[in-house]
Amino acid sequence: MSTTTGDLARFSINQETVRQLPLPELVAACGDLGVTGVGLWRAPVQEYGVEATARLVRDAGLTVTSLCRGGFLTASDPDGRATALDDNRAAIDEAAGIGTDTLVLVCGGLPPGDRDLGGARERIADALGELSPYAAERGVRLAIEPLHPMFASDRCVVSTLGQALDLAERFPAERVGVVVDTYHVWWDDRAPEQIARAGEGGRIAAFQLADWCTPLPAGVLLGRGQLGDGSVDFRHWRELVTRAGYGGWTEVEIFNEALWARDGREALAETVERYRAHVL
Amino acid sequence: MSTTTGDLARFSINQETVRQLPLPELVAACGDLGVTGVGLWRAPVQEYGVEATARLVRDAGLTVTSLCRGGFLTASDPDGRATALDDNRAAIDEAAGIGTDTLVLVCGGLPPGDRDLGGARERIADALGELSPYAAERGVRLAIEPLHPMFASDRCVVSTLGQALDLAERFPAERVGVVVDTYHVWWDDRAPEQIARAGEGGRIAAFQLADWCTPLPAGVLLGRGQLGDGSVDFRHWRELVTRAGYGGWTEVEIFNEALWARDGREALAETVERYRAHVL
Repeated sequence: MSTTTGDLARFSINQETVRQLPLPELVAACGDLGVTGVGLWRAPVQEYGVEATARLVRDAGLTVTSLCRGGFLTASDPDGRATALDDNRAAIDEAAGIGTDTLVLVCGGLPPGDRDLGGARERIADALGELSPYAAERGVRLAIEPLHPMFASDRCVVSTLGQALDLAERFPAERVGVVVDTYHVWWDDRAPEQIARAGEGGRIAAFQLADWCTPLPAGVLLGRGQLGDGSVDFRHWRELVTRAGYGGWTEVEIFNEALWARDGREALAETVERYRAHVL
Repeated sequence: MSTTTGDLARFSINQETVRQLPLPELVAACGDLGVTGVGLWRAPVQEYGVEATARLVRDAGLTVTSLCRGGFLTASDPDGRATALDDNRAAIDEAAGIGTDTLVLVCGGLPPGDRDLGGARERIADALGELSPYAAERGVRLAIEPLHPMFASDRCVVSTLGQALDLAERFPAERVGVVVDTYHVWWDDRAPEQIARAGEGGRIAAFQLADWCTPLPAGVLLGRGQLGDGSVDFRHWRELVTRAGYGGWTEVEIFNEALWARDGREALAETVERYRAHVL
């Protein structure tokens, strides 16, 4: 087990990768495989209970590497904005409650009929100004995740690490960071220099992995592929974040119906093997 | 008709937008609607015959604004490379044969198992070095089209105008230009400065329009939306290319099964109306 834990010391499994496993089974499977980090999602945490989740993972010696997700901060109407801010304060409370210091933000797309990406990005900056002090008081850092440009209209108008850093750098580094997710940035020839910039500023809040596979499914959300099945050179990206000074967790986050249809423990074991084969 | 021709003076319909119309019917419909420019595709041109196509469009007073497409220049094996170069020389011959000065290039994705985007981009540069003199001798300019990053692995490793210009600028401007297609670049906050860069260098070879609509269909290729149905601010992009000195055609290129299922003349008439409503 000590060998296993050794090479998995920085490995975290995002809960959504094996969503077929209820939380207690996920925690047990992590123990059996020597996995010591998990990224959690709000809905299953709420279902199991924030305090019960905190106790479960603490008793198992697991670190919660992130909570997914806050965000959706681009509403242009006052009611929509107030609702989003309330929901994000709740997400921050939940992050603090389960003992993670990182709340991943999917910042939001364009409101219906709106075509102004720049305006939407400014509304995100406004919202971060409101939320980041609240989060900091609770020991939680907001982590802006740039999403692949194919999500720009409906999920996240922040499409590149450069844009994410332009937003994050308006705030102190300990309050607002960025997520480097290979699935979202692998195509971007400017990402390496932006990772260096993020590292210099102490802004890399999370490093997430999924592979890029085609053809994409309808709606594209569930296209994230198992490590090794696609076009991403994971060692290249791991080296880039390491060279930028990142020493945190590497979280594997895959949304993939074929993976979800399988036995959850088997899917988790495969993910660990793929991590060893393609990332380490 | 003169009014019609007036405001459609720079409007071109890409043949694939109304692929249900055989070439002679497309040409007739263009005449009826006052459309004076068409972008053609290799397969239907080959089917109708290059000389017959040239005669048909010339007799109708139509300008062929581009031929789609050459490219797929990323093969790493010598045979694949030679085949691609031969095919591109044929495409150049066809472009010259139908009397257009613009051959649009979809540069190609990653070969199977290859994860090196930078290497693939270099192979494109090599191929352009071979092809651009051949094209120039025939009065044809190669137009690098950056494709949306969601196509980076399987269709085109050139994902941004910045990357396209980095490639194009290795060659004389009259030999290699770039395509500004709203569908591919609308999300990119750096695209405006890259359009200015392209304009300064005389590199804008074509300006193409489609709207960004979600959810994307499986495979994503046929997601291009009718003007006005999605998130693209067309006037904004038209102003950007105009301000950059571009005075050429505006070609509407939509791949959309719902549009293809309709009466072709009706779909073309709607496209013209949408152009008036959302672009002019």
